[in-house]
Amino acid sequence: MNYEQLAVAVQSGFSSGDPQEIQAFLAAEHPADLAAHIAEWPVDHALQILALLPIQRQADLFGYFEPDDQLELTEQLPEDRLAALFTEMNADERADLFAELPESTQQALLKRLKREEREDIRRLAAYEEETAGAIMTTDFVALDSGMTVRDAIESLRAQAPDSETIYRAYVLDENKQLLGALRLQNLIFARPDRKVSELIEANALAVHVDDDQEEVARHIAKYDVLAVPVVDAGNRLLGIITYDDAMDIAEEEATEDIHRVGAVGDLDIGVRDAPLFMMYRKRIVWLVLLVFGALFSSGGIAYFEDTISAYVALVFFLPMLIGSAGNAGSQAATLMVRALAIGDVEMKDWGVMIGKELLVAIALGGTMAIAVSGIGIFRGGPDIAMVVALTMIIVVTFGSLIGMSLPFLLQRLKIDPATASAPLVATLADGGGVLIYFAIATAILGLPAIST
Amino acid sequence: MNYEQLAVAVQSGFSSGDPQEIQAFLAAEHPADLAAHIAEWPVDHALQILALLPIQRQADLFGYFEPDDQLELTEQLPEDRLAALFTEMNADERADLFAELPESTQQALLKRLKREEREDIRRLAAYEEETAGAIMTTDFVALDSGMTVRDAIESLRAQAPDSETIYRAYVLDENKQLLGALRLQNLIFARPDRKVSELIEANALAVHVDDDQEEVARHIAKYDVLAVPVVDAGNRLLGIITYDDAMDIAEEEATEDIHRVGAVGDLDIGVRDAPLFMMYRKRIVWLVLLVFGALFSSGGIAYFEDTISAYVALVFFLPMLIGSAGNAGSQAATLMVRALAIGDVEMKDWGVMIGKELLVAIALGGTMAIAVSGIGIFRGGPDIAMVVALTMIIVVTFGSLIGMSLPFLLQRLKIDPATASAPLVATLADGGGVLIYFAIATAILGLPAIST
Repeated sequence: MNYEQLAVAVQSGFSSGDPQEIQAFLAAEHPADLAAHIAEWPVDHALQILALLPIQRQADLFGYFEPDDQLELTEQLPEDRLAALFTEMNADERADLFAELPESTQQALLKRLKREEREDIRRLAAYEEETAGAIMTTDFVALDSGMTVRDAIESLRAQAPDSETIYRAYVLDENKQLLGALRLQNLIFARPDRKVSELIEANALAVHVDDDQEEVARHIAKYDVLAVPVVDAGNRLLGIITYDDAMDIAEEEATEDIHRVGAVGDLDIGVRDAPLFMMYRKRIVWLVLLVFGALFSSGGIAYFEDTISAYVALVFFLPMLIGSAGNAGSQAATLMVRALAIGDVEMKDWGVMIGKELLVAIALGGTMAIAVSGIGIFRGGPDIAMVVALTMIIVVTFGSLIGMSLPFLLQRLKIDPATASAPLVATLADGGGVLIYFAIATAILGLPAIST
Repeated sequence: MNYEQLAVAVQSGFSSGDPQEIQAFLAAEHPADLAAHIAEWPVDHALQILALLPIQRQADLFGYFEPDDQLELTEQLPEDRLAALFTEMNADERADLFAELPESTQQALLKRLKREEREDIRRLAAYEEETAGAIMTTDFVALDSGMTVRDAIESLRAQAPDSETIYRAYVLDENKQLLGALRLQNLIFARPDRKVSELIEANALAVHVDDDQEEVARHIAKYDVLAVPVVDAGNRLLGIITYDDAMDIAEEEATEDIHRVGAVGDLDIGVRDAPLFMMYRKRIVWLVLLVFGALFSSGGIAYFEDTISAYVALVFFLPMLIGSAGNAGSQAATLMVRALAIGDVEMKDWGVMIGKELLVAIALGGTMAIAVSGIGIFRGGPDIAMVVALTMIIVVTFGSLIGMSLPFLLQRLKIDPATASAPLVATLADGGGVLIYFAIATAILGLPAIST
């Protein structure tokens, strides 16, 4: 059995294909693969496959669909099946899906759920997007500090089916405040009559429910933990975030940063599935803004039109010079955006980084000046060569400093540093570059008496 | 006690600071935090702190240092302490560090290690960089399929201290071939007399030892597993890769992609610590290449110098038009580079993506044409406005198609698609943009009879 044969079987209304073979195939496949394949099929075919699975596995599978596929499927599911699915889904995935559902489906669904689940969904849905609260799950294992190891293992066994992980359990005091974490490993190898309180790791390194999801992912990566507890201001345990969610967030945030560096707005879905109008909308804003940004360059050109008329040869070097300023600026901005995102560089490092950038940029500009002055002599003679070489050093340094500083400045203004995109920095560097170029040219070459 | 007080205590040769308080502080801190702080101190101070810790904790701490800090510390460590440290370190981190050591230290170290460790280091060091083999650890838990649950738990207890994780154990047959994985969770809640073979998950989804590390990280993220087994061509289990390594790889690969998109070469260390000459070297190559790339634009300008002399007003629109082509191209390239990196888009999607891009680009170009034609009328009259608007549509489409296709083309040529950096695409789009602009201008406005 393979996916093609499965598709044929579904298409034929299961009149083809051995039912036992199909069941065996569905049971053996990883839900991630199963979800990826059937998401490509017509909705009613996908629903028929879902119906063949036990409800717990349907819920697992559902967690692996993309949000828009999930929505499409829920629209076709009868209310009772949807409610059963919701009961089995992970608390965090359930809350995310719930938030996407139309109001009427939400109401119908809430009526069919148990009170406990209803409250859980409402609570999780209340946290602001992209915070720890919004991505945490309430499916964690909690233990009392007074328990013995024997009791704790018994309690784990009871909580295991509804928990996202039992490899880390959290120990609470009588006020539900977090005392620390406990590794399953330490629990099962401990003497059964020991107290849980003797085994906890006091330094549970919790995150706060309002923390940004990016910080949470960084926290998990830094401390190499399987899961991190989420607490409120009173240190009460509200939920946990597991490593697999941290990986997804880190990927999402890296994608967002790369897109912003390329001057593309945040896409909620993959490029392949994004509708045309969404792609248009996410790109046109920056393109139009940058056209008006380019007016600075144009203004510079208009201002120096006499110089240009007198020395049309100068135009030859324009793309090279302003291009280099933009390229050096893009490099510097990209380096800073990423370094700020992964915490390699912080606000307080600005001074040091500016100093380093200045030295590197002058070296870069100097090298480039040598490269272009040869072309300058060949195309325009020694005077032009001098103008071009001098301009190169200055514009490359100028572009680099803009590219380096802008991400810091944005961070200071609480705007995502990745907004300092390569095209934005290039446009700013272009504008400055034009002015610098023609100002130097006018100063060195002089303006002929008769022009225009 | 805090890090400042600790630093003062070390500086004073521990004549200040309560030894018990220092010990308590060192024991409570997470090794990630401890490593981050003492890496900033003079090497001999850091070594004094290390000496205060039990050897297992020294080894943990060592794993959290950056490679260059590790090297600096090993240089000052006496051989016997270094050998003791090596014995306790994780197999994968140990092999990585070993590869960085100078030949003489390697030889001295090997003499002091047990045969088993020596072979382990040699074996791991033999795998090619950035493959599964190079990042895997040999510290995994293996069980025989014939064992009972009781025996298996006993075996886990014995293997636990030397294992990176015991939450997933791997079951082998008599030829060391991988039969499947076993979750600790299922093991401890099973009847003690059951056979391990009844509990294994047959679909262990192993990766191959030669697989690229990026694929491995993607595998772990996709299947949400704690660890993935690494096998050779004969399905023999060689090692495992855990989720925390996958997170580090994913971050590293994202950083590499962002840098490449910004036309910066791969940095081995963080921007903050990178020496000036490294920063220069990683940037100058692309900058110089792109200057020569800009010669296409300059060549275009030289070719159309007569048109430019006749209509100097055209130069006014040059930054806007070629800038827009470059910006649209950067957007498209960035989108494709990331989509290819995370597997959202594959080679076979080229056709579809080109089609979508063409439609989106024409819409973008059309909108931009409207935006600039206003400026065109105002600055140069209806003829110039027509030239500018027409050029805008064509160059934005041209730039977008280059930006979209180049990453695919590079992937096809087995070059990293991220090499299609924003500056490279912008430079290519500039060159085409200049030719298109002046060709259209010459065609519509005509070339005055008397010029030059």
